Amino acid sequence: MMNMDNEKTQASAWFGQLRDDICTRFEDLEMALKTGPHADLPPAKFERKLTKRDADGDGGGGEMSVMKGRVFEKVGVNISTVFGTLGEAAQRSMSARTGMEGIADDPRFWASGISLVAHMQSPKVPAVHMNTRMFWTPHGWWFGGGSDLNPMVEVDEDTAFFHGVQKEACDRHDPSYYPRYKQWADTYFMNRHRGEPRGVGGIFYDDHCTQDWAADFAFTQDVGQAFLDAFPPLVEKHMEEPWSETDRDWQLIKRGRYAEFNLVWDRGTRFGLETGHNPEAVLMSLPPIATWP
Amino acid sequence: MMNMDNEKTQASAWFGQLRDDICTRFEDLEMALKTGPHADLPPAKFERKLTKRDADGDGGGGEMSVMKGRVFEKVGVNISTVFGTLGEAAQRSMSARTGMEGIADDPRFWASGISLVAHMQSPKVPAVHMNTRMFWTPHGWWFGGGSDLNPMVEVDEDTAFFHGVQKEACDRHDPSYYPRYKQWADTYFMNRHRGEPRGVGGIFYDDHCTQDWAADFAFTQDVGQAFLDAFPPLVEKHMEEPWSETDRDWQLIKRGRYAEFNLVWDRGTRFGLETGHNPEAVLMSLPPIATWP
Repeated sequence: MMNMDNEKTQASAWFGQLRDDICTRFEDLEMALKTGPHADLPPAKFERKLTKRDADGDGGGGEMSVMKGRVFEKVGVNISTVFGTLGEAAQRSMSARTGMEGIADDPRFWASGISLVAHMQSPKVPAVHMNTRMFWTPHGWWFGGGSDLNPMVEVDEDTAFFHGVQKEACDRHDPSYYPRYKQWADTYFMNRHRGEPRGVGGIFYDDHCTQDWAADFAFTQDVGQAFLDAFPPLVEKHMEEPWSETDRDWQLIKRGRYAEFNLVWDRGTRFGLETGHNPEAVLMSLPPIATWP
Repeated sequence: MMNMDNEKTQASAWFGQLRDDICTRFEDLEMALKTGPHADLPPAKFERKLTKRDADGDGGGGEMSVMKGRVFEKVGVNISTVFGTLGEAAQRSMSARTGMEGIADDPRFWASGISLVAHMQSPKVPAVHMNTRMFWTPHGWWFGGGSDLNPMVEVDEDTAFFHGVQKEACDRHDPSYYPRYKQWADTYFMNRHRGEPRGVGGIFYDDHCTQDWAADFAFTQDVGQAFLDAFPPLVEKHMEEPWSETDRDWQLIKRGRYAEFNLVWDRGTRFGLETGHNPEAVLMSLPPIATWP
């Protein structure tokens, strides 16, 4: 297996570009708010902070972009590029999952990606998650990612719109991708201990490798772009609707369940916590305030 | 290995008795509040609810006692007695941990215990956790439990008092117990992803079996009693102290970290979620409100 230095550089650069595009679009939404309980607050801007991965003999790091505003109560957009050697537990789970051989003999890895979670001020605006990443080991590489919508109360039209944009992006590459990756999202974004989905789904994929790196990278780029096409219109549609205290109470309960999913089940969160990545960056996804009444 | 029906009955009955004693004492504390921002609210009482464990072919259940009051913002005291067969993941982890043989051939288990978490209105009053339990399989039995104090800001005198009461209870049984089980608590109650203890410790033990069931049960009873001797005096001492918004903000942050510990690291919580116990009962430990600002 080659080192793929050129591919790694391209992927990392693109995750940074997507981050820039998303931050610009989200700051525009912050500016656009005209009415509602928070309209008299000043629009916020993203603040950026470098993060360093601190693990024995390993390296890398990333950049957190955080905005706490009047439309976005808390949104984090992290990019990171990390490398090193997998610990024994990670080696075992990766061998079991991918079937790749030789991981224990050469447990090096490299991973780069973007990860985003937005918790909104208004209970009428869905929360959202998106991430895409490239993972490399000497034994194989793959892409992973996805995006899922987390409304407080489901609105069929929004769900259909969000899924439609994901489907269009997937279909440009392979008609089997959307059905497969929608199904995976339905299975994955599930609070299994409650038998309850965390939201209305989207797409989720991992171990995506057709052996054609350029095609798989192009697919992952389209998934990132689809997020920009799917989520901001829903924010614009709902951000000025009135809401009640009851709506807000329910939003905080749903956020508690979101926190449960991320801490108990989310593979990326657990990988980050177990491999010594900066906890503030890994846990940026947690809601600004949540309740378990 | 015998079925130990008599021992199981004694242990279950005692966990129920301890629950009653704790609830009475906590209701007295609710009544005792005279000054402070919540003194004009009515004192709360515990409400009890049966819980049923719902897993294929397995059974048992328990009782949740919850009080949401003016001293205790949210306190849950759960007792449960569950039995069935361990799933494959639980079989593997139990074999690895205890070294017991034959678990896969006869994976039956029975477990009974009490579990308590209190989140307090006042940031000046520590949060607290206590649990004790008896676990039985055809291949061996043991007790586990412990108690740890979670103040928002450490007060040396309180820490010394809490630990002193635990030590006294342990020393009555074996002078090696306190040093060993205090150390275990220090290691266990650690948010490893932050390199930060969740509180000021206490004692933690598991797989406790000297082969003398009566002695081990008496030890576990004393650990339960020590909780009643150690925690309520700290509530009385601090519950009427004034506090500031800054104190409260910090309390909500500490509660977020408490939630992280329980969802990411706590063995009992993960066992409960993975074996299909009632999620409301397992997650009763989560704080009524928490922040990740």
